[in-house]
Parts: sequence; C-alpha cells; structure tokens
Amino acid sequence: MKFATMKNDLKDGSLLLVSRDLSKAFSLAAIAPTMQHLLDHWQTLEPVIQPMYDALNGGELEACFDFHSEQMMAPLPRSYQWCDGSAFLNHGELLQKAFSLPPQDDFETIPLMYQGASDCFLGANDPIELPDERHGIDFEGEYAVVVDEVPMGCTAEQALSHIRLVMLVNDVSLRGFIQREIKGGFGFLQAKPSSSFSPVAVTPDELGDQWCDGRVCLPLNVTWNQQWFGEANGDEMNFTFGELIAHTALTRKLTTGTIIGSGTVSNKNTERGSSCIAEKRALEMIATGQAQTDFMKFGDRIHMESINDAGESIFGAIDQVVISGGNQLAK
Amino acid sequence: MKFATMKNDLKDGSLLLVSRDLSKAFSLAAIAPTMQHLLDHWQTLEPVIQPMYDALNGGELEACFDFHSEQMMAPLPRSYQWCDGSAFLNHGELLQKAFSLPPQDDFETIPLMYQGASDCFLGANDPIELPDERHGIDFEGEYAVVVDEVPMGCTAEQALSHIRLVMLVNDVSLRGFIQREIKGGFGFLQAKPSSSFSPVAVTPDELGDQWCDGRVCLPLNVTWNQQWFGEANGDEMNFTFGELIAHTALTRKLTTGTIIGSGTVSNKNTERGSSCIAEKRALEMIATGQAQTDFMKFGDRIHMESINDAGESIFGAIDQVVISGGNQLAK
Repeated sequence: MKFATMKNDLKDGSLLLVSRDLSKAFSLAAIAPTMQHLLDHWQTLEPVIQPMYDALNGGELEACFDFHSEQMMAPLPRSYQWCDGSAFLNHGELLQKAFSLPPQDDFETIPLMYQGASDCFLGANDPIELPDERHGIDFEGEYAVVVDEVPMGCTAEQALSHIRLVMLVNDVSLRGFIQREIKGGFGFLQAKPSSSFSPVAVTPDELGDQWCDGRVCLPLNVTWNQQWFGEANGDEMNFTFGELIAHTALTRKLTTGTIIGSGTVSNKNTERGSSCIAEKRALEMIATGQAQTDFMKFGDRIHMESINDAGESIFGAIDQVVISGGNQLAK
Repeated sequence: MKFATMKNDLKDGSLLLVSRDLSKAFSLAAIAPTMQHLLDHWQTLEPVIQPMYDALNGGELEACFDFHSEQMMAPLPRSYQWCDGSAFLNHGELLQKAFSLPPQDDFETIPLMYQGASDCFLGANDPIELPDERHGIDFEGEYAVVVDEVPMGCTAEQALSHIRLVMLVNDVSLRGFIQREIKGGFGFLQAKPSSSFSPVAVTPDELGDQWCDGRVCLPLNVTWNQQWFGEANGDEMNFTFGELIAHTALTRKLTTGTIIGSGTVSNKNTERGSSCIAEKRALEMIATGQAQTDFMKFGDRIHMESINDAGESIFGAIDQVVISGGNQLAK
C-alpha cells in the first residue's frame, strides 16, 4: 500500500491512500485522520484498508481523485523520533580519506547514528528555506523506514517485523557546521535543518524483490539543477535497517512512528555518482587534491526518485528549490 | 499556572490544571484534551484557563479532586523535539579536568547542545527500566522549558517570549556509552535512554523573582537513596534559555512543544554538591586521583525537587526507582 498526507489547515495534514502508479488518491479521513493515527492503530486498520487499496488500483473506488505530489506534506509531517544512521560505510570512508580524519574504532561493527530533529519535516515539493548560502548547503539522498512500537533490547531479526513503511529522504545538511558539531561530540543541531520526505510512504511489499534482507535494493536517482548527479543503489548498505533499529533500541523502547534513516546512499562504483555534494567533493579531493564542486545556491533545484527496472517510480519524486528565509528581524 | 498529564489508556494522557500548592487538580479534557493541544492553542485557551486557575487556588472550583503525582505521565508524555544543552560550564570543566580531555574551542561562546529522544518520556514516579547495571546508570538533574513555535533566526531576547512552561528533568544517562558516542561525533543515542519530567509544568510567572534573565534561580534538591546529594542553584547557568533556544533555531524553525534543557545544574561552590554522579566522581578524581562513588544499581531511588525560600515545591518531585527491564527474548 502507498500512503500520503495532504496539506490542510492542521499540522498533521489529512491521510490519503494512493494508487500504486501514483495517479489516484482516496481520503482516509473517515477512518484514520492522520498518518500517526494509522500507525497507532495499524493492526485494526490495515485489514480494512487493504481491500480499498485493491479497489483503488483496479479503478473501482468511487470518490477517488487525481494525486498531485505538490499538495503533499511529508508522509509524517512531524514525528516523535527521527534517528539517522551512516550505514553505507563507503561514504564515511571517502570523507575520512579526503579529510585525513582519524579512523573510528568499531566503525564496521557498531553503526554510527545520530538523533535528528523530527518536529517539522518538509513535503516533497516544499521549498528548502535557509538563512545563508555561506553555511555550505548540501542534500543527502537516503532511504528510511517507519516502525511501530519496538521493545527495548529488540534484536535485528525481530526488528524487521516492526517496519511498517519505507520512504525516500533528503537529509538537508549545512556543511559549515558539521566539523564543529562533530568535534564537540554532541552531534548535529545547526548542521541538520528540517529534512524532506518523498510524497508517499509505501509498505515494504510494494518493493517486491527490491526489499531484501532489510535493505532497499533500488537506485536512488539524483539530479541537481536537472543534471545527473548519481544513481547509487541501496543494496550496498552495510548495516541493515534491522541492525539500525536494534542499535537504537538497545537501551530504550521506540514508540510508534519512529523513523530510521540509512544515511547517504553510497556505492563503491564511482560511475554510479553520489547522493550528496560532500561525497563528490571528497572524490575530487582524493583524485586531484582539490574540491571543484561548490555547494548549493539559492534557486538551485534538487530531484530524488527511485525508479525500478519496470520504469516505475516507487515513492514519487522529491523535487525542491532552495530559497532564502529566516527571521528578518533577527538578521 | 500549573499543568499535569494524567495517565489513561491513551499515549498522550489527559490534561489537568493543578493548584499552586499541588493539592488539587481539575480536568481540562473538555477544552484541551492533551498538553500538546493546549500548547497548539495557547493564545485562545490561556485567557479561558487563567480564571479557572484562580478559582482552583481559591477553593472555589467544583469538580476538582486530589492531585497524586504517581498518577501522572510526563507533562508532555511524547513530544516532537527535545534539545538539551550543557549550559552550566562548571560541569563540563570538571569533567574535562578529571578526564584530561582536550579543551573545546568556543565553549564559552557557543553552547554545546544535543538532539535528544523525545518519543517516550517517563512520568515523575515511573520506574526507570534499563537493561544492564554495567552500563553505568546515572541521573542528571536539570531545568527545561517548553516553547511555542519559534521562527528560524530568532534572537535570544525574542526567544524568551516563546517560553510557555518550565519543568524539572531527570536526564537519565548511561556513562558506559558516553565516551564512544562523543568520540564518534554523532552525539548520544544509546547513552541517553528516556528522560523523566516533574509531575507538573508551570508557567514562568509561577517562579516569581526566581525566573530571572531566562534562568530558573532555584536550588535543585537531589537525594539518592534518601541521602543528600546536591542542591546546586540554577542561577549559575552560563547560557540563558533564550540563548539555547536561539542557538537551536539558527537554521530552522522549532515547532510548538519543543523542549529545551539546561544540562546538569552545577555550581562552583562544591558545598552545594552535584546533580549527577559523573560530576561527583570527577570531583573525587581531581581531589584524590580516584573515583570512589559507583553508579546506580537496580533498586536505587533518585529524588529531585526544587523548593523555594517559602518551603514550597514548585514542580512537585521526581522520585523514581531503577529497575531491570528489556526484551527478554533478546537477552
């Protein structure tokens, strides 16, 4: 099944069921007003919604309407938790090599993860409003899953059964703050403004064989200002989503609606490009001693989408423009 | 005004108005079912509730009932954001000295803050369920504020007007994970299980003169297994809550219900004791080269309360026992 959250006057929007081909939508407001409500009552609601989904795909559901991704908020417009990993070790290794950083102990056995801001996510076509180009504006293409309640001490294998939905993420990053915040050891606050999510969140079965061993085995197609930037595949993820969930839940339970991210999708084959500018710059530094590619400017456009072998867009597209914003009084 | 959230079958509980002396409560369910709802509609609801509060304090509100803190969840049982500072520099300096850590650049001008888990907070009398004593179980006594929507780029002075409520926090910490997670640079995940909050959250005017320049100028009285442990005062906070909010909002807006913490309350005068075991151990190491005090064991009790000069408990007491828990299957 595929779900989206339509903008309305409320902070959590209104829940929609979306057809597999992303052409049609049906309001679920009568049975599940919001995505959080759906997740909180999944066991009861899932069997009710599945036949509706079949009918929607078969063109047999009256009162459906055309789906337009620009009318969507993030599938979870605000959530109680967002924890993001760095599960593609190739990405970390490239940055370590480029910047001659000290190697991390245990980086191959213990995933590096940070607690991210979840209070205000951006919709797939919302502008990315930021205060200053000089902060080093970057995108990060990632996969993410939404879980139901995960008990403390859950194993990686058990964790897979708690995954309800899969999404794409643009984990917007401000590189100018990253080094100071990493050095401080307390993680990211100013370096990670609001993240953006794909128009729809899908149940894992929508991925078919491309959902395997807790990984999304699809290319993440990235273009920046309409130019090809990367198509790294999720199949090289070193820690599975099950392992990331188990790591997070070692000392506490995770409540329903928690989002777990993969970190920047990154492949060893450099012909597949990158999913963030920082990695492309790292490759340039390793090759020539100098980064050539600059970070984003106001007016720049970023597009992310996962297309399967049949040419189908699984999550719809993240397609955003970076704009100047912030509290004018404070400037 | 003072507010609490009573346990019921729902994840967000039921909102109560609580009398100044913490003896009586009145259900606000008819106008504001949850704390998040109250915060989201503060401008409309505040003028309606203020006369109810006056009547409750005057003993003129029918349908009020006795207030029992053990029936309470955290004032916000789950929230969309929890960002915690380390705003008492004395605390960081002691730990740096004890462990011979490298000094942080800019530590006096840029607050150190981390994004914490906000998906599942503990009530003031809930047990602290943790998987393993060997993780180095510690408490951290702190003050925290709840804000309404804060625009990106808000100044520290503007930020003060966004503070709606003040609370006590026990920021439960697992010292066994802290060093690895600080060294990784991505901040705390396993080291910071669910935090606990005081039974009531109060509007800043309840503090009278003890709310000054964005600080809570009250002692934080801590006992551990009924033994005096500390009474450090919030007046030595080096960064004000306004400054912590402005730091967090530099690159993004903060949505309503965001909680901002002070970090461990710590005073230069060692006769006032400490608000966490790690700091007491640091003092022991500095004095004798060896930490004598061990961390918490299952069955230990921690009590935190702020009493003003008139002997009144402002927030009620956090009073919790640490117990063994976790997914038995996973052990």
